[in-house]
Amino acid sequence: MIIDCHGHYTTTPPEHQAFRDAQLARLDDPSLPEPEPAVISDDAIRASIQDNQLRILRERGGDLMVFSPKASGMEHHVPDPATARAWAAAANDLVARVVGLFPENFAGVCQLPQTPGGSLDDAVAELRRCVETLDFVGCNLNPDPSGGFWTSKPLTDAYWFPLYEAMVELDVPAMVHVSSSCNENFHALGAHYLNADTTAFMQLVQGDLFARFPTLRFVIPHGGGAVPYHWGRYRGLAERMGRPAPSELLRNVFFDTCVYHQPGIDLLHRVVPDDNLLFASEMLGAVRGSDPETGIAWDDTKQYLDRAGLTEAQTEKVFELNARRVYPRLDAQLTAAGR
Amino acid sequence: MIIDCHGHYTTTPPEHQAFRDAQLARLDDPSLPEPEPAVISDDAIRASIQDNQLRILRERGGDLMVFSPKASGMEHHVPDPATARAWAAAANDLVARVVGLFPENFAGVCQLPQTPGGSLDDAVAELRRCVETLDFVGCNLNPDPSGGFWTSKPLTDAYWFPLYEAMVELDVPAMVHVSSSCNENFHALGAHYLNADTTAFMQLVQGDLFARFPTLRFVIPHGGGAVPYHWGRYRGLAERMGRPAPSELLRNVFFDTCVYHQPGIDLLHRVVPDDNLLFASEMLGAVRGSDPETGIAWDDTKQYLDRAGLTEAQTEKVFELNARRVYPRLDAQLTAAGR
Repeated sequence: MIIDCHGHYTTTPPEHQAFRDAQLARLDDPSLPEPEPAVISDDAIRASIQDNQLRILRERGGDLMVFSPKASGMEHHVPDPATARAWAAAANDLVARVVGLFPENFAGVCQLPQTPGGSLDDAVAELRRCVETLDFVGCNLNPDPSGGFWTSKPLTDAYWFPLYEAMVELDVPAMVHVSSSCNENFHALGAHYLNADTTAFMQLVQGDLFARFPTLRFVIPHGGGAVPYHWGRYRGLAERMGRPAPSELLRNVFFDTCVYHQPGIDLLHRVVPDDNLLFASEMLGAVRGSDPETGIAWDDTKQYLDRAGLTEAQTEKVFELNARRVYPRLDAQLTAAGR
Repeated sequence: MIIDCHGHYTTTPPEHQAFRDAQLARLDDPSLPEPEPAVISDDAIRASIQDNQLRILRERGGDLMVFSPKASGMEHHVPDPATARAWAAAANDLVARVVGLFPENFAGVCQLPQTPGGSLDDAVAELRRCVETLDFVGCNLNPDPSGGFWTSKPLTDAYWFPLYEAMVELDVPAMVHVSSSCNENFHALGAHYLNADTTAFMQLVQGDLFARFPTLRFVIPHGGGAVPYHWGRYRGLAERMGRPAPSELLRNVFFDTCVYHQPGIDLLHRVVPDDNLLFASEMLGAVRGSDPETGIAWDDTKQYLDRAGLTEAQTEKVFELNARRVYPRLDAQLTAAGR
C-alpha cells in the first residue's frame, strides 16, 4: 500500500475559519461573546474531502494519507492559551471526523495548542486526548511558535522535554512543522517552512537530544529543507565541531519527500538512506497546478519517485514500511484492519 | 583561468580581532579610549595568507580569489554607527593590503558598515571608498543586520534603494551574505547562512526589484541555500502567486558553488543554467578538513565540479567567464593586466 505521510486539511468548510475569525475578533474586543466551534455536517466534511484530497490521493494511486490541520492555520503566534486550546481542539476534532468518515484513507495527526514561550502543559494534554481518545498517530510540533521571530528555545532545550516525554510514552512521532509567518522577511511557503526544516536539523546536530530520548522520532518535512542538498556541509561541520556524524541522527530523524521536481527527488534518494525517507506530497498544500513543461502536478511526488530508480525493496520502504515503523500506532491500526 | 568568487579573510593576524575587542569594550565602558585599527606589518599579512588561502588556492589549481572580510566577523548587529564605520574600514583596508601584496591572486570585495535599521548612508560611502579608492570589485550585503532576528526590511524594500543606486552606478554586484547569528536557534554556518540565502531568493520572487534596477546583480552564496534543491517548489509557487517564473530572476541573480559534496554540485549543475553558476569554495571558511570516505577536502568544490560532467564551454563559464561578467571591474583589471 501507499501511505502519504504529509497532508493537511486545507479545504475545511468555511464555517471553521469563521470560528477562528470570531476567536481573533474577541481577542480584540473582549466584550464579544466567546465563540463556539462551528457546527459542520458530515455531508459538508465529506464534500470538502471527496473532491479534493481523496480524489487526488486515489487518482495518483495512494491509499492512505496521514492527515493534520492546515499548517499555516495553526497560528501559534497568537499568545492567549485559552484561544490556542479551543482552536487546536476544534481543528483536531475536524480531522478526527474526516478519519471517521474515511477510515481507510486517512489517519489523524494533531495540531498542538502551542503559544510563544508558553507552558507545554496544554500541548501535552491535547496530544493525549488526540492519541488516546481520537486514535491519532502523531503530532505536528512547531519549533517557532512566534511565527518567524524565533523567540523560542531550540528543540534540544529542556523547555520541550515534557512534550517529548509524552510522545515517547505514547509512541508517536512529531512532524517538525512551522505555521504562518508574521515576519515580512519570510514568505511562509517559500522561506519560513524550508528555513525551519534546516534550522531544526542543525539544532539536532548541535545537541544530544536522542541520548536522552532514544526512541523519540521526528519527521522533517519538505525533503528536509536545505539539509540533503548540503549533506557534505553538515558532515564537515559536525566533524569540525566534534559532534557525531549527522548519519547518527538518522535513527531518530526522517525526511519526507515533499520536493517538487525530479532533480530534487533524485538528490534526496541519492543522499538519504532509504530507511529514512517517507513518501509525502503535502497535497493540497503549498504548490498547486502542474509543471507546464512536463504536465506533472508539482506536488505529485510519486511521479518523481517512480522515476528515481528505487529498487522494489526501496519502494516498499519509502511508500509504506518506513511510515508503519515511524508511526507504530498507524501500523497497529492497519494490522488490526488486516492491511 | 580559475576565479574563486567567494573567499573571506578568516586568517587575519590577531591584532585585528584585538581592535574589535577594544571597540566592543568601549561600547560597554565609554570611559575607555577610542581604539585605533591595528598596526600590522606586511610580513604578518603575507604570512597569514601565504600558508593559508594562497597555498590552498594554488594547490587546487585556482588563480584568483574574490576576497572579502570574514563574514561572521562583520557583526552588523552592533548598533553603533561609528563603531560599524571604523570596523568596516579597518577590515576593508586589510583586504586591500592583501590585494596589494598579491595582486595576481586576490581581488577585493568590501564589508559594509550596516547596522540594524540604520541609515545606509555609511554603507554607500564605504562602498564608494572601496571601489573608487581601493579598486574593489563588489560588496557583501547583509539582508539581516540584526544577526538572526530579521528585523530589517526585505531586500525589495525602498530602504535598500540608496545602496542599489550606488551599486548600479559603480557597476558592482553584491554577494548576499549574513554575518554571525545572535539567535540561539540558528547555528551561523549550519542554519543562518543557508536560511538567509533561501529567504533572499524568495523575497526576489515576491518583488519587482529588477524592473526598477535592471542591471543590479546579486550573487547568492552557498549554492543558493535551499533554492536549487526546491526549484520546482519555486516554479510552482511563482505560478500560483501570479509572479514571473523564477528563471526570469536569473538575469540578475547568480549562485556560487559552495556546496560541499558531489550530489549537491550535481544537482546545482542540473538545475541552474551554466550562465548563472560562479565557481567558489569559501575557503578557508565554514567547513575545514576532508571527507574521510573520499579524501577530498569538503570545500574543494573544484573536485566536485570536475566530476559533474560540464562541457568545456560550461567549464569556462563557471570557472571564469561568468565571474568576469558579474564583476565587470574585475574583468577590466584582468584585461588591463593582459589576462
